[in-house]
Amino acid sequence: MTDLALAVDIGGTKLEAALVTTDGRLVDGSRHRGPTGRERSVADLDAAVTKVVRAALSSVPDGARLVGAGVGSAGPVSLDDGAISPLNLPLWRGHPIARQVSELSGLPTTLRLDGQCFALAEAWVGSLAGCENAIAIVVSTGVGSGLIVDGRLVSGRTGNAGHVGQMLLRDVVDGEEPVEATVERICSGPGTVAWARARGWSGTTGEEIVADALRGNDLALGALRRSTRGMAQAIVSVAALLDIEAVSLAGGLALGYPGYVDDVAADLDRFSVLPHTRAVEVRRSSLGADAPLIGAGGLVFRL
Amino acid sequence: MTDLALAVDIGGTKLEAALVTTDGRLVDGSRHRGPTGRERSVADLDAAVTKVVRAALSSVPDGARLVGAGVGSAGPVSLDDGAISPLNLPLWRGHPIARQVSELSGLPTTLRLDGQCFALAEAWVGSLAGCENAIAIVVSTGVGSGLIVDGRLVSGRTGNAGHVGQMLLRDVVDGEEPVEATVERICSGPGTVAWARARGWSGTTGEEIVADALRGNDLALGALRRSTRGMAQAIVSVAALLDIEAVSLAGGLALGYPGYVDDVAADLDRFSVLPHTRAVEVRRSSLGADAPLIGAGGLVFRL
Repeated sequence: MTDLALAVDIGGTKLEAALVTTDGRLVDGSRHRGPTGRERSVADLDAAVTKVVRAALSSVPDGARLVGAGVGSAGPVSLDDGAISPLNLPLWRGHPIARQVSELSGLPTTLRLDGQCFALAEAWVGSLAGCENAIAIVVSTGVGSGLIVDGRLVSGRTGNAGHVGQMLLRDVVDGEEPVEATVERICSGPGTVAWARARGWSGTTGEEIVADALRGNDLALGALRRSTRGMAQAIVSVAALLDIEAVSLAGGLALGYPGYVDDVAADLDRFSVLPHTRAVEVRRSSLGADAPLIGAGGLVFRL
Repeated sequence: MTDLALAVDIGGTKLEAALVTTDGRLVDGSRHRGPTGRERSVADLDAAVTKVVRAALSSVPDGARLVGAGVGSAGPVSLDDGAISPLNLPLWRGHPIARQVSELSGLPTTLRLDGQCFALAEAWVGSLAGCENAIAIVVSTGVGSGLIVDGRLVSGRTGNAGHVGQMLLRDVVDGEEPVEATVERICSGPGTVAWARARGWSGTTGEEIVADALRGNDLALGALRRSTRGMAQAIVSVAALLDIEAVSLAGGLALGYPGYVDDVAADLDRFSVLPHTRAVEVRRSSLGADAPLIGAGGLVFRL
């Protein structure tokens, strides 16, 4: 018999389920998608989970058996009760997703934050394979991550470890009121767009800013340099603290702009005080849109 | 038979050895100290290790046996070959301390960074007992730390995890050259003194700045507030990343100034974006000068 994992990924605009092999591949034809979104009712969301999970379960090939289920979800999550309250799905609060998937599948079910699943996938079969200490960061609408420390995926006390986007980059200027200056505000797509627009750039999306930068527009280039510089500072801090060997970058901004990874690597050298932060390798994520489901499957085979 | 650990702690001005019980206490009369320091030769330092280790070994009580040795050291350390190159002992480079202690004692010997031993001690029998996710930070001449993540002490790739002092707090101002603005530069004793002196304060030490702050001197108070504010920002970043439940503070500045811990706790609330960083408890270290040796013993019993 071939062992397989049921993998479920819950995001702000869609949810997916698929079957994952013991060597970290998706089973052909097993991937199914349903809609989520801000306005979806609890009943709609519950039904969408049921539908994609049942579709994936019906895809089990002859000669294979399911040995467990893994769920990755947008946060916050609560590992104590296997429940999720995704910020972008405001009507779903404390939804017991682990119990729902377990009841639908009859399988032991493990829940983790989506950024953690992404890191697990990259460390299993992606750009961080073989790394015992590493971080995988998604630079997109938000900035999220997952951490591998001493060979193990980090969950944290409540299950919400990995919020590199909420690290602070900027000191408060003496005598002024404290301002929010998170990594996410400085490095994310919306943060980058807002910085450029405040200086006269007329576009509205991260895709446009990447396109304008590739045409040589100075404001677009400056906005992306601000993102890469902030990302390098964040990575220096993570590396000083955790002595990691590599970082994998993903997301529209980091993978969309061809110079992103190289610029971050150059600034990492520039901002480093310690040899072990200077030595960190900056890589491009290699798994693309499959990473969340592969990582959810990894919760069964690789946790 | 009672099991004991041989514990060794190597610092910039002294080294110590002692015996540690399975419940995290030092055996009375087993603690021995020798000198270190910038000018000490390799032969002097080697001899000092030999002397304190032999003295501790001769303190084993009747009915007890040694089961292992643990060494905590100022960094950097290299776990691959059990060697140390403490920054403040410049003549000792790549010293094979683990082999030396093992040969002197006949015991299996484990090496870790001193900040990591401190955290292990606090998590074992100190202010972080029972915590599965926490950080212990020393705010002194430098700023070092050790991390407990998902119940385990974090070593990192090369053994140098815990450098909270080399995290970056301040964004680089656009158009200006990047400046070093580490947590250590902002929060440490020397960093705090330098800030106050640049504004006209005439003292020279962290002890003086604490004394002047207690007398109500505005510059001294401002300098300490800058340290506590920077420390709170660093803890917010660590907590966002690792979802920790508590932080333990130690060191001359953090324990010497009575308001330090409360000020950090108040700023932690002020700078937090996420519920799980706001909920972090700030505590005073409870083990004092025994922590390094207890933690080195913990490498035998609690790693």
